[in-house]
Amino acid sequence: MTTRVLLTGFEPFGGESVNPSWQAVERVAATPPPGLDVHALLLPCAFDVSLDVLREAVARLGPDLVVCTGQAGGRPDVTPERVAINLDDARIPDNTGFQPVDREVVPGGPAAYFSTLPVKACVAAIRAAGLPASVSHTAGTFVCNHVAYGLAHLLATEYPTVRGGFVHLPYAPEQVTARQQPSLPVAASAEALRVLLSAAAAAATDLPVSEGAIS
Amino acid sequence: MTTRVLLTGFEPFGGESVNPSWQAVERVAATPPPGLDVHALLLPCAFDVSLDVLREAVARLGPDLVVCTGQAGGRPDVTPERVAINLDDARIPDNTGFQPVDREVVPGGPAAYFSTLPVKACVAAIRAAGLPASVSHTAGTFVCNHVAYGLAHLLATEYPTVRGGFVHLPYAPEQVTARQQPSLPVAASAEALRVLLSAAAAAATDLPVSEGAIS
Amino acid sequence: MTTRVLLTGFEPFGGESVNPSWQAVERVAATPPPGLDVHALLLPCAFDVSLDVLREAVARLGPDLVVCTGQAGGRPDVTPERVAINLDDARIPDNTGFQPVDREVVPGGPAAYFSTLPVKACVAAIRAAGLPASVSHTAGTFVCNHVAYGLAHLLATEYPTVRGGFVHLPYAPEQVTARQQPSLPVAASAEALRVLLSAAAAAATDLPVSEGAIS
Amino acid sequence: MTTRVLLTGFEPFGGESVNPSWQAVERVAATPPPGLDVHALLLPCAFDVSLDVLREAVARLGPDLVVCTGQAGGRPDVTPERVAINLDDARIPDNTGFQPVDREVVPGGPAAYFSTLPVKACVAAIRAAGLPASVSHTAGTFVCNHVAYGLAHLLATEYPTVRGGFVHLPYAPEQVTARQQPSLPVAASAEALRVLLSAAAAAATDLPVSEGAIS
Repeated sequence: MTTRVLLTGFEPFGGESVNPSWQAVERVAATPPPGLDVHALLLPCAFDVSLDVLREAVARLGPDLVVCTGQAGGRPDVTPERVAINLDDARIPDNTGFQPVDREVVPGGPAAYFSTLPVKACVAAIRAAGLPASVSHTAGTFVCNHVAYGLAHLLATEYPTVRGGFVHLPYAPEQVTARQQPSLPVAASAEALRVLLSAAAAAATDLPVSEGAIS
Repeated sequence: MTTRVLLTGFEPFGGESVNPSWQAVERVAATPPPGLDVHALLLPCAFDVSLDVLREAVARLGPDLVVCTGQAGGRPDVTPERVAINLDDARIPDNTGFQPVDREVVPGGPAAYFSTLPVKACVAAIRAAGLPASVSHTAGTFVCNHVAYGLAHLLATEYPTVRGGFVHLPYAPEQVTARQQPSLPVAASAEALRVLLSAAAAAATDLPVSEGAIS
Repeated sequence: MTTRVLLTGFEPFGGESVNPSWQAVERVAATPPPGLDVHALLLPCAFDVSLDVLREAVARLGPDLVVCTGQAGGRPDVTPERVAINLDDARIPDNTGFQPVDREVVPGGPAAYFSTLPVKACVAAIRAAGLPASVSHTAGTFVCNHVAYGLAHLLATEYPTVRGGFVHLPYAPEQVTARQQPSLPVAASAEALRVLLSAAAAAATDLPVSEGAIS
Repeated sequence: MTTRVLLTGFEPFGGESVNPSWQAVERVAATPPPGLDVHALLLPCAFDVSLDVLREAVARLGPDLVVCTGQAGGRPDVTPERVAINLDDARIPDNTGFQPVDREVVPGGPAAYFSTLPVKACVAAIRAAGLPASVSHTAGTFVCNHVAYGLAHLLATEYPTVRGGFVHLPYAPEQVTARQQPSLPVAASAEALRVLLSAAAAAATDLPVSEGAIS
């Protein structure tokens, strides 16, 4: 049976002209992994609208799996986020000019949600494909974490059988040509996402191995 | 009126012969900030014992403020932790040889607790003293996060009027003489802790400024 | 008229099972840039043999341009080396077990040679192709610098009309799957080398722009 | 017999309000190591004047040892420079607004000079004092390298019995309070310089150990 997947990426923000998350998502949707029906969705980099757009798409598509992706400038590898926190604290304005400080994503919601993706199985599968990955324990406090938390809250409260989570991707090389920062080509990030989606669709439980961090 | 402070540091772990957190704590207790009555407590780097030791000390001392500190190897600055998560996932064994994977710190506890320290006021005060600091949004998944979460849970459930949180400190220079990693002398970390304690004792609410992270 | 290019890469060293420099060189030789006749040469990661192999190939092929490449683990971008120094100081043994300390590459040779590649034009061309690059001012003191210096000395003393230099490449992603270090896929490194070779073949002089380093 | 030492530091540059090199030099001159007669000299951060000031001081003082120091923002440790190159390539203007590109420090001079300090003995002594140090193989291409090269050329051509070299120091903590960059307190940098000066005054030859770099 086909697994229906909602896969989201963000529009560019912070002065960038591209966002590797959307570029990768488009590639995955164009050439999805076998057995997966992948629907791509572009999210605005905007606190207040992003979750409305996501919620509408989940309601419309009825996916089995929801994976949201974003750009993590400076990270060298693909990082499934294990946790999202109930906090907006924006160091820069979002694309609408809005810059919330110390606001809850969901007023009265729990302090955090853990991803319902099998993050360690996902990381192991990406590595087995020869691509770099690790589990992250912070998605920041900007729109990415906002969407990661909002998605987790939506699934926990309204779609308890749907699994989902957030994945951060490195800069694309074209973004760092003169910056001496790590990057990963969009084709490689897309391939990592394909492998991740297959692993997430296949595994009901996660691997019993440590991918923890000392600090 | 004097504020009674319980200030903890860890014993060395991971092959190190010192832990800058305990070295700094000893200095602060020997020369505390004005108006603060600081009690130093050494915590074992052990998942199962550390929280017993902490709980006993809180019960015995009746502090107004509890600040636990630990070593964050590789970080260049003093980092008050804004959040602690209900997850033990040990990349290395603790000092008793125990290495939990994907275990809750407190079975059935909330996914996370936010610090009840005014972390932004603390960071601002440390910077004003000429020392480097930033807010962190992950304390890892080892014994430091275990204690950070356990402390938050203890205060939330049994001592709701007591404020507390966790602070990570850089390596001491003597730990990285040949490693090309960032460090901060223990005297500087101790001074940062003094300033932090004074700020935490003084401020009932935090500063309305962003110290967020993009990712 | 066709430019004849000798392009070298290294065998794996330091416990790695691949060396991205040789992988990239093989790709460039298989699909060279237009107008270039590219001859690939594998160099052993060995102080004493590497330069013999290089010297023999230069004598045999009579190239117009010689570009040697190597792996720079940890660098995020493609880095033409501007300078090579007359110093072997090996932190680890080479692949023959030899570990020279404070030895000259060429006894009595000059302290350093500057690359005769137009390094800034090369960097600009790679960036224009959407790939990350910067000028480096140290090739280290291991076999890479040994070959960089030995090549420069050979060309300066015996082939003054032949231009040449050394280029460092990042790890391949498959080398860092679980290491959280920067990488660049071999296909991208190969494309950067193609662009570099074309730029080096075309430009007699370098661009008058700064690519300097503060420290 | 007392060793006469000329020890230089730089004025602030690049928008900084302090330069840890001059701050450290002042401290060393105020409290020099036993047996050393230390003369502090402030150098302007200016390509064309810096070497005039240095040359005049060397002629006037007749030192046995000359150590020039500068700020290396981003480095975590004290780094004696092993080599200086005959190249000015300024990424930013110096304090007079001058920004040379691809100019020789000394027209017609050798491509590089190696330090005549026993850099490995210096590093070993600093580490033995509990402070972080490593040998560097690039001093950049800005005013620091300019002075490092100019000093080496001056000693080689006019004062062949005088030993000297350049040492880079990390940012001071007060420079990076909000930047998450490595730092070292000026008192620690000063102590490292004292130890370095004593080691340099004592050792005629360097230690036969590797402090090389792979790349």
